[in-house]
Amino acid sequence: MNKHTITFLPYKKQIHVNDGENLIRAAMEAGVHINASCGGEGVCAKCRVLIEEGSVEDGISERLSKADIEQGYRLACKSIVRSDIVVRIPVESSIDNSALNVVSQRKKAIIEEIDISILKEADKFLPPVEKIFVSVPEPSNANNSSDATRLINCLREQFNEHQLEFEMPVLQKLPDVLREKEHQITLTIARPVRDGHKNNIIDVAAGDRTPHKLAIAVDIGTTTVYGELLDTHSGDVLASYGDFNGQISYGEDVISRIVFAEKGDNAKTLQKVVVQTINKIIEKIIHRAKVNITDISIVTLAANTTMTQLFLGINPRYIRRSPYVPATMFYPQCKAVDLGLNMDSHTIALIYPCVSSYVGGDVVAGVMGSGMYQTDELTLFIDMGTNAEIVIGNKEWLTCAACSAGPAFEGGGVEHGMRASKGAIEDFLIDPVTFEPMILTIGNVRPKGICGSGLLTMLAVLLENNIIGQNGKFNTELKTNRIRKQNDTYEYVIVWADQTQIERDIVLTEIDIDNLIRAKAAMYSGYMTLLTSVGLNIADLDRIILAGGFGSYVDLDKAMTIGLLPEVDPEKVTYIGNGSLMGARMNSISNHLRQDVGETVARMTNFELSETPSYMDNYMAALFLPHTDMSLFPKFNVRKEEKKK
Amino acid sequence: MNKHTITFLPYKKQIHVNDGENLIRAAMEAGVHINASCGGEGVCAKCRVLIEEGSVEDGISERLSKADIEQGYRLACKSIVRSDIVVRIPVESSIDNSALNVVSQRKKAIIEEIDISILKEADKFLPPVEKIFVSVPEPSNANNSSDATRLINCLREQFNEHQLEFEMPVLQKLPDVLREKEHQITLTIARPVRDGHKNNIIDVAAGDRTPHKLAIAVDIGTTTVYGELLDTHSGDVLASYGDFNGQISYGEDVISRIVFAEKGDNAKTLQKVVVQTINKIIEKIIHRAKVNITDISIVTLAANTTMTQLFLGINPRYIRRSPYVPATMFYPQCKAVDLGLNMDSHTIALIYPCVSSYVGGDVVAGVMGSGMYQTDELTLFIDMGTNAEIVIGNKEWLTCAACSAGPAFEGGGVEHGMRASKGAIEDFLIDPVTFEPMILTIGNVRPKGICGSGLLTMLAVLLENNIIGQNGKFNTELKTNRIRKQNDTYEYVIVWADQTQIERDIVLTEIDIDNLIRAKAAMYSGYMTLLTSVGLNIADLDRIILAGGFGSYVDLDKAMTIGLLPEVDPEKVTYIGNGSLMGARMNSISNHLRQDVGETVARMTNFELSETPSYMDNYMAALFLPHTDMSLFPKFNVRKEEKKK
Repeated sequence: MNKHTITFLPYKKQIHVNDGENLIRAAMEAGVHINASCGGEGVCAKCRVLIEEGSVEDGISERLSKADIEQGYRLACKSIVRSDIVVRIPVESSIDNSALNVVSQRKKAIIEEIDISILKEADKFLPPVEKIFVSVPEPSNANNSSDATRLINCLREQFNEHQLEFEMPVLQKLPDVLREKEHQITLTIARPVRDGHKNNIIDVAAGDRTPHKLAIAVDIGTTTVYGELLDTHSGDVLASYGDFNGQISYGEDVISRIVFAEKGDNAKTLQKVVVQTINKIIEKIIHRAKVNITDISIVTLAANTTMTQLFLGINPRYIRRSPYVPATMFYPQCKAVDLGLNMDSHTIALIYPCVSSYVGGDVVAGVMGSGMYQTDELTLFIDMGTNAEIVIGNKEWLTCAACSAGPAFEGGGVEHGMRASKGAIEDFLIDPVTFEPMILTIGNVRPKGICGSGLLTMLAVLLENNIIGQNGKFNTELKTNRIRKQNDTYEYVIVWADQTQIERDIVLTEIDIDNLIRAKAAMYSGYMTLLTSVGLNIADLDRIILAGGFGSYVDLDKAMTIGLLPEVDPEKVTYIGNGSLMGARMNSISNHLRQDVGETVARMTNFELSETPSYMDNYMAALFLPHTDMSLFPKFNVRKEEKKK
Repeated sequence: MNKHTITFLPYKKQIHVNDGENLIRAAMEAGVHINASCGGEGVCAKCRVLIEEGSVEDGISERLSKADIEQGYRLACKSIVRSDIVVRIPVESSIDNSALNVVSQRKKAIIEEIDISILKEADKFLPPVEKIFVSVPEPSNANNSSDATRLINCLREQFNEHQLEFEMPVLQKLPDVLREKEHQITLTIARPVRDGHKNNIIDVAAGDRTPHKLAIAVDIGTTTVYGELLDTHSGDVLASYGDFNGQISYGEDVISRIVFAEKGDNAKTLQKVVVQTINKIIEKIIHRAKVNITDISIVTLAANTTMTQLFLGINPRYIRRSPYVPATMFYPQCKAVDLGLNMDSHTIALIYPCVSSYVGGDVVAGVMGSGMYQTDELTLFIDMGTNAEIVIGNKEWLTCAACSAGPAFEGGGVEHGMRASKGAIEDFLIDPVTFEPMILTIGNVRPKGICGSGLLTMLAVLLENNIIGQNGKFNTELKTNRIRKQNDTYEYVIVWADQTQIERDIVLTEIDIDNLIRAKAAMYSGYMTLLTSVGLNIADLDRIILAGGFGSYVDLDKAMTIGLLPEVDPEKVTYIGNGSLMGARMNSISNHLRQDVGETVARMTNFELSETPSYMDNYMAALFLPHTDMSLFPKFNVRKEEKKK
């Protein structure tokens, strides 16, 4: 993709961006503060910048005077970068000169992508379902054994295939399909998980269909469901689509879904609704990739335990009752159509096993898909979604736990918290002198509230700028009308009412901050509890893997600043995106991985943190920014100084 | 049952009969001739007998004078035996005195019944589906593993059960069922055919359901379908029911069904219709035995290859096209509901494998059920039904073939031939002097035609009395109006028109006899061809097993007289009834037998007789009564003299 260089003056800060990038987003990425409150609707007109060299697309607003425009002023939030440019941030909308030296670019986790070629080299690229093109001998008086017998003999002799078993629908089609193209057929064979078990012949078609080997991977999230269409020959993703889980209208989180499911036929309703969501996704990706649904032989689904049980029609009632037991860890292979999916009748469905009621198949999929289960390195895997789960270990051992972090980082329990959707403030900077904010919203519209990444960033920025202390309380001596006391609580006004969609001031209160601290403390205590249970500590960590939608937005420095992540070298942190979907994808294309899943799940020692005495101690110690034990965050002050702006 | 002794005078022949036996049937059984033509309707009044001691029930008719009745005359066909009696056959309705010494009782094959206790002693009484009552530990904080995990651990520790796998519907029920009766549950487990494979948990119920272990066995005949309900614990048959195969209206034999099935959606119609028949039978036997359908865990079905493929929805088109290949030998295990059967969703269906297009699962079931597959004795197994199949061998080897005997012994191609239903002449004797017949009809009604056993008996009786010669031609020099020439063909009048239901003379023509000879020659040639293929001959046979509806009526002496059966000591001949049903029953109660089926089928060498050169020579040699090579029937003349009457 075409790249452009932006030089920000007076900081002389350069950044390379993709063609079409929004200028204010580029500034945020570079760590360059521009006052901005309205999310990019051009309402506040605070983000006036001067294009000194080159030019931008758009950027013009009625809030700019004709003279301004002629001079080269543009609204950063409306400007699209189409070439190399030099941009000056005017004094009135920038920080003071004293901060010029501390501008620094944000650190995100390295994005790790699956490298299929490694699997191929290791000869581990064996999909759970294969297609074989066979020329079967025609029957004669000398060989009038049955169609199936001649076929089996041929597979044995020519392909060294054994332990084959037909499914009934294949036998129903076989005689006619054989004779359709002169006894040349393509067989679809489902491999067993363990060697020595049966290879099921699940489909037969006339002629050569081997170039069409497709699979689907699905992540059923509590909030969002994602699907991918895969070519199991190349491992390529041919199409993907995501949509809200239709169950959302029946409850935001797993607990409220379970509560709803307990009444009457509600569990069936939830099952039907999520199946509809998945079917819609399947329809979309098939339509996008223009493939035949009959060429899709396998679908792997990964989800947390509650989502899995609801999808399969297994009552999730006991998941939320002490001692919190799921119905099962392993789900049998079955036919996709038997689960209500609109797929061909031969297509098999594989469902990721879970470890416990709150460490589900989505986490297992992440552990598998990320390769954590076979690494030598001591790894901390964190899946931050609607729920947070952590896994620590390597190829020798694995411990895991669900963190009752609460939904604060999803916007829950925070006055202006909201889900990461249009109008959510997702990024934030502050002028350390004027305390004026710079915000970005999802969709570049007027803000409605603050989503998880916005809250995380805000907390760190407020702390770095001493607007709040390590105890999460506001420095009330600062002279700004943005910090005020309302209903006995201090709060910071991020956006004034007239620049919002909600016509109320968007604020972050001390209570909100307290909830965020509790949430990050729960996470941190989780790491500590798991690590100390095996006699290790943070310093021993070789690697951190972030998974889940939240992880993609995390500024690593900021997450370490507030103690949400343990302090490690940022180079050690990788982001795998949707780990659940990644694991589902890997499972659909590698039978070896599938063979390893069972053993891995059995190795994953589950901790019920609420039942683990040290957890509460660790939690109490973490109720501080970043932590009461500052030896765990030796670089805190350095980072704080670097980041302050 | 109460037995009575009947003494027939003047022959001084005694026979023991069950209470309620019909007197003329008792006479036939004893080989005592009484003229009788009307089938027992009392119309011909020829069967007047004098009750000299004791008395009979009924037997009175308006055709008897008051004086006759007072003297003790009764119509034998209307008389019911209720006590010991002495009966005199009047001269006018009996044979002449010269025959007094040759009266002999008929020899039927010994009926063999399955002895479950032998299986039990041999520790082979392991049903393919079992129920286990388990007390599962309740979950606690110390053991909060999943419901399925606690259950599996419990089965492993307490029952030494391994390789267990849940079916999805079981997992869907498990959490609630576990908690219904304090974690006490009954599991239904389907065993694998081979050790080391998976044990599928197919059902779960609260409390102890182990006393209710039921199975169903079904024989899908071309003409008739039989079902039995079995207690898999005791092996007892709890109820049974038979009904015509609903497909009958679409064709009498397999070929006409295939021809019909080839057009449009007809195959689906035939499938639907036979499924309806089976469902009706299942409903009847469940109703008769008053059991819960949910306690039936297994159904085994056996049928010929065409019936099996039609039932399963597999196109049978290629069965009747050279080189006559079936779709498959083995059918996968599946769910009964997936075959359209009205059974519980957990119930599994097992279908007997076939050897070839014309040696089907019904024959394999007979070979398994009769134990022939594991005997040391050289055995000839003959399944005589709508089609005839023969198997020769022992536990070391087996050869088999379908005989294109044609339907003559089912009444096909015979002018007055008919199926064995009400009004069919089923038994026959003749007065060697007057050539007057004695007939019995099914249902004791006026005759409509002649069924298979009637034809077999007639042919033998006519031969024994020199009414026909060994070439099947009538002795035209006999002085009786019953032998006559019509349309250039000689025939014997069995019943005059006025005593029939059809108001035409019922006759047996030379053409009919020719067809019967061809049919028996085809059978005999089959035995010879199979035997000589392994270097053996008739004298080497240790045992003959008769199976099929027809076999029950066969008078062994008569069958040997005409050469339908090879000449062996009658003691070596056993009759197992419906071999297909017997095999289905055994399969439903012994997994060991099921394990042996695959290997047995693989051992059964199939001969396409039409493709075997020696078959035609053997056939030509057998177109004589009993055979052109009389050394094969050394006792023919002895038997003929003994039997003549």
